[in-house]
Order: sequence, then structure tokens, then C-alpha cells
Amino acid sequence: MRPKIYLFGDSITEMSFGDGGWGASLTHHFSRAVDVVLRGYSGYNTRWALRVLDKVFPAEIDVGNAGEPLAVTVFFGANDACLPDRCSAFQHVPLDEYEHNLRSIVSFLKMRWPTTHVLLITPPPIDEAGRLLYPYFDNTSGLPERTNEAAGAYAKACIAVARELGIPVVDLWTKMQRFPDWQKSFLGDGLHLTLDGNRIVFEEVINILTREGLSLETLPVDLPHIKEIDPIDPLKAFKI
Amino acid sequence: MRPKIYLFGDSITEMSFGDGGWGASLTHHFSRAVDVVLRGYSGYNTRWALRVLDKVFPAEIDVGNAGEPLAVTVFFGANDACLPDRCSAFQHVPLDEYEHNLRSIVSFLKMRWPTTHVLLITPPPIDEAGRLLYPYFDNTSGLPERTNEAAGAYAKACIAVARELGIPVVDLWTKMQRFPDWQKSFLGDGLHLTLDGNRIVFEEVINILTREGLSLETLPVDLPHIKEIDPIDPLKAFKI
Repeated sequence: MRPKIYLFGDSITEMSFGDGGWGASLTHHFSRAVDVVLRGYSGYNTRWALRVLDKVFPAEIDVGNAGEPLAVTVFFGANDACLPDRCSAFQHVPLDEYEHNLRSIVSFLKMRWPTTHVLLITPPPIDEAGRLLYPYFDNTSGLPERTNEAAGAYAKACIAVARELGIPVVDLWTKMQRFPDWQKSFLGDGLHLTLDGNRIVFEEVINILTREGLSLETLPVDLPHIKEIDPIDPLKAFKI
Repeated sequence: MRPKIYLFGDSITEMSFGDGGWGASLTHHFSRAVDVVLRGYSGYNTRWALRVLDKVFPAEIDVGNAGEPLAVTVFFGANDACLPDRCSAFQHVPLDEYEHNLRSIVSFLKMRWPTTHVLLITPPPIDEAGRLLYPYFDNTSGLPERTNEAAGAYAKACIAVARELGIPVVDLWTKMQRFPDWQKSFLGDGLHLTLDGNRIVFEEVINILTREGLSLETLPVDLPHIKEIDPIDPLKAFKI
């Protein structure tokens, strides 16, 4: 039985199997070693995520599974950070509640699976011009429903929670802004990821998993690799 | 618990989560409805596949799962069709044994899961020039280890097995050759799929799944969709 890595988050997770998506790249990377399981829910914030935790990770999934999951990525904040007085206000979650909710999500996962690596990912930066060009809901205000400054505050809160709980975190908000033209290189509509944006998330997640001891070097390959199969007597590799 | 679709096959399956891969596209398409599970084994033929069936699909995977899988794609033949007197002879499986092995694989799956849709996929056509340019093993003979004619014979055998067992089949060999320049448009190295080649497999698999009643219209969405969440009272959607 192969071990699993769950990807839990909002639309940036749900869309992670589109062309060049970071979820697809993780699956490709671990194609003979890990089942990557998609649990992305577009539009969700941590308040809603907390309400559905026991449905996303029901107790039954442990039965008949390959032990505890290797890892769970928890990638929320882009919706929590919608401004409370703009057109996506219904998705907004106050900063202190966001922190509290993240702690509760991590604690649920750690209680269920003490050895599982829980990995936080901060929201990405926001390109406000992009958000005005590609509105998700009717927006006649001329003001973006998300700002980069607000996303940054949630990213910092996410990092603080990770430090407090002693778990790894990808600081996507800072990482992306180190590159020139991050607004267009990494974000297609001011929020969701381009090919290059997806590549950064993939690389950062792989870096952390490797640091945590989860890599192709340490994980067993499922069934004999073609290189281990003797051309003279191929069936030898399949004898028990 | 989400239902599953297993992708069982050789390298064309194992590589199906690369950029624009057909496995990744299936996961993306069913992102809130189905878990697509990758079980691709590079270099494998049906003889080896048969030896590992009960490890790929161990009885334990039924426990704690969401009932029988929705579907399993069985995509072998590209390695069986290696010529017996060329450099990949150790992967060759005679045509009648290939047919017999395919029947055994389908029968194993149908015995285990009577309601699961088992879907065969024929090997793709072969671009022999491509195979000479990108050898997988040492090949000084000047002759390709696979020919399009041989692949076609295995494709026809695959279709015959599907008809005999009354199960659906994607005739990839014929389908691809209907397009001009299929050699370069669909095959990167004479065998493995380009972006456009992957798109054809994805579309054909979706067509068959839809015909079998498995589509976004018929499958339930996991947890409330953002469009069902009332902006005035979002938490209403999450009450049991």
C-alpha cells in the first residue's frame, strides 16, 4: 500500500492539477512512491474549512490505509484575506480568527496522525491590477476585493502559527515578491498561479518534504523498477 | 468518501501527470468528485502486470473505501509489442499471450469489483524514426525495437478482447493516425505522448466515462460548491 500526501486548501489547491499545476507535479515526481490526494475547495476560508474537517478527513480513511499519511499541505488565507468592506466580504475572516482556525486545523491533523508532517503554505501575494481586470463577482466599486498588504498580514500570521507549533511553512508571499515582475510572472489573474507560479510552489513543497526526510531517496519504490529487471530472466524480479 | 478511478498501465500511464498529462487532466476535470489514482509501471508488459495484480490492487484497499472504484483504465501493449528479435526483446510478449493476459487482468478486476467500469486502451501508433532517434537501451542495429505494424496488431487484439468481454475500449492506434503529422504531433520520442497526444487520451477516456454514465453531471460534488454558499449566511451551507 502506498503512503499518501493530502493537499488541503482553497482554489489554489483545487486548481493544482491543471497544466503544469503544483499538485500534478508532485504526483509526477512521486509517481511510483506516493499517492497525492487532492482536497482543494474553491472559495473556502479557514472558517469553512474548520466546519468540514471531519468530512474531508473522515476516521474511516485510516482503515485499510498505509498507516498515517506522510504529509498534509494546509494552504488557506487567500480568501480569509478578502477585505471586509469589498465585494468578496462574505469570504473574509478576521486575522485573529484566521490564526486560531489554522491552529485548530493543524491540531486536528496532529491529533489524528501524530507522525504526519503538516506543512503550512502562506497565501501568495496579490496583484491588485490583475484582480480588477478579472473579477470573480460583480465589482463596480473600482476597488480590488483583495490587496497585497492584507495578504501579507495573513501570510505573517500563518508563519507565526507555524513557528509557534514548530511545523514547516512555505512563505509564498515573500518568496514570490523576490522576483521582478512577480505580478505577471506568477499570477494569472492577480491571485491564481501561472505555470511559473505553480513551479515555485512545487519546488518549495519538495524542499520542505526533503528537509523532513520525505524524498525519492528515502521512500520505497512501488514494485520492481525497470532498471532492476534482469533482461535475461525478467520474471526473477517478480518472485516473492 | 470520494470514489476512485485507477489508472493501471505502463510508462504512458506512469508519465501521465507530467505537464498536460492525461492523468493530471482527469484529476483536474474531476477535482471535486473523484480521486484519480496512478498505478503506472514503466516498461511493464501484461505478463509482468499479471504477476503484480494482487499487489497493485490488494484486498485491503476495499476496506474503508467508498465502495467499488468507479473505473479502472487498463493501458498495456506498447511493451508487449516490442519485437522479439530486437534490442527490447525482453519486454516482448507474444500476441496470443497478450490477449490472454488482458482477459485475465479484466477478469481479476471484474471478479473483485463487479460494478466497476473497466476500460481498455490500445497502444498508440509508433513513429519508427522517433524510436531510432531516442533509444531507451543500447541499440546499434539501426532497426527500431518497436514498429507501427506490430503496435497495430496488438491494438487490434486489445479491441478484440474488449468486444469479446463487452467492455469499452479506446482505439488510440487508429484514432491518432487519422491526423496528419501524428508522428510528431502526438509522439515525442516515437512512443510517449506530447501535450496534444495526452489531450487525445484524456478526451477519449472522458468520452467513454460519459457514455458509461460517469460525468460531472452524474457524480456528486464533494462539499458545498462556492456557488451554493449564500453570501448573506455562508455557514448555512455547512449545517448538517
